[in-house]
Amino acid sequence: MKTRPNEATITCSIEPFRDGNSQGTCTDIAAVEAPLEIRFGGREGTILMRTPGHDDELVRGFLFNEGIIRSASDILSIERPAEQPTSFNGQTIEIRLAQSLQNRSLNRSFLSSSSCGSCGKSSIDSLAIEAPPVKSQISIDMRLLTCLPERLKAAQTTFLQTGGVHASGLFTPEGDLIAIREDVGRHNALDKLIGWAVGENRLPLAESILVLSGRISYELVQKAVMASIPIVTAAGAPSSMAIDFANRYDITLAGFVRPTSLNAYTHAFRIH
Amino acid sequence: MKTRPNEATITCSIEPFRDGNSQGTCTDIAAVEAPLEIRFGGREGTILMRTPGHDDELVRGFLFNEGIIRSASDILSIERPAEQPTSFNGQTIEIRLAQSLQNRSLNRSFLSSSSCGSCGKSSIDSLAIEAPPVKSQISIDMRLLTCLPERLKAAQTTFLQTGGVHASGLFTPEGDLIAIREDVGRHNALDKLIGWAVGENRLPLAESILVLSGRISYELVQKAVMASIPIVTAAGAPSSMAIDFANRYDITLAGFVRPTSLNAYTHAFRIH
Repeated sequence: MKTRPNEATITCSIEPFRDGNSQGTCTDIAAVEAPLEIRFGGREGTILMRTPGHDDELVRGFLFNEGIIRSASDILSIERPAEQPTSFNGQTIEIRLAQSLQNRSLNRSFLSSSSCGSCGKSSIDSLAIEAPPVKSQISIDMRLLTCLPERLKAAQTTFLQTGGVHASGLFTPEGDLIAIREDVGRHNALDKLIGWAVGENRLPLAESILVLSGRISYELVQKAVMASIPIVTAAGAPSSMAIDFANRYDITLAGFVRPTSLNAYTHAFRIH
Repeated sequence: MKTRPNEATITCSIEPFRDGNSQGTCTDIAAVEAPLEIRFGGREGTILMRTPGHDDELVRGFLFNEGIIRSASDILSIERPAEQPTSFNGQTIEIRLAQSLQNRSLNRSFLSSSSCGSCGKSSIDSLAIEAPPVKSQISIDMRLLTCLPERLKAAQTTFLQTGGVHASGLFTPEGDLIAIREDVGRHNALDKLIGWAVGENRLPLAESILVLSGRISYELVQKAVMASIPIVTAAGAPSSMAIDFANRYDITLAGFVRPTSLNAYTHAFRIH
């Protein structure tokens, strides 16, 4: 299977079995997972396994959430070198950072090797993030909050085709969708979303609600802290460390969000 | 929230909202996510974000699936240093490897920084694995295959409490559960399972079926290749790269497994 750059889905051949019998072969659509290598100054950098598309946003969000850049202008250029990898449908991106960040980022790039937030870190103390608690005056009606996972799902175009990707969506306090990004990796979906906001100079996102398609692990809350998002919700369960981070950084965390119910884990004062 | 070592769950305080109203606060159970630092010879190594419990198996499976060890005897000792981290409820494990592997593993430990299979790798060619295609005479009734996700779910004790962990289960061709492991990270759950098999000298697992609780990404198929597991199934969808790896390494890959149906993506000849 050879995928084309920037295609999020691919046609594959499957053999469905129903009630004990093969139905012969037919075609289906799968979500693409392919490596993106980010290089700094021509040197080997880091690899993200991601669904192609919105790669510039992914890079921007990844570098922002890792604390390497502070704004879009810290990236001087994002280029695709003429020589591209030949294996695994991979792609390479070459980043040039503002002079003042170059040493920092190069050191960091070898420490931090995936957008999952912990990879590449080699001591437990390095998991700490340098960011203040989230400040926001936002308050949201519980009845509106419980609608958001369904609204997210309705906008998940790649999921509707493949059943195989996660999504991160940003909503206004009125429940309107601002932006959504999808990816086989839930951390990538959030990096893409925040990378979009960085590119649009929309940060801090202190008046927004983040809705996640799956469970809530600590790295997703960590990224929300970096982007100053005050409310994080998901249909799934949060991990202990996600709850811990949300508590520490003043984020309202809601899990098991259903059409008429939810569980608030931290800072429920923002829900009325 | 302070977790105790080896506890997979933690009691937390939640505020449930139902039909527009707060129900007051009560307690609930969440899955623990906490860092485990693996050190080699006292030097900083790599961090896995995992659910505590079966840590020795996790380490064994991680090192096996990364190609660092070939058998349990390649690990001379797994010890918990007296000085343990104070942040994030983290734990440190100190590994001593057979003399012949020490240089290899130390180099590798800085390249490979999480059990998600791609993290820490810095060039796309390094994603290739050194393993032969899986050889097996196994053949399985489609009706039996479709029962396995339900059997897995029934054995997911931590999931039943928290709704927040993934599982990997190993089954016989007759559909009997051999072993199951759970974790907030699906790759960790599989590393623990394979680490168990490594410790029991059960490899290769050429007569076994692997059942996964979620979606199938390439790193899960990659780990199945390392353990020579011929059939991989899941209730969720596979990614393009998971299909690609399964095809290349002669693994039968089935997704969207439901009580009366499934989709076979590769090497369906093992299903009858």
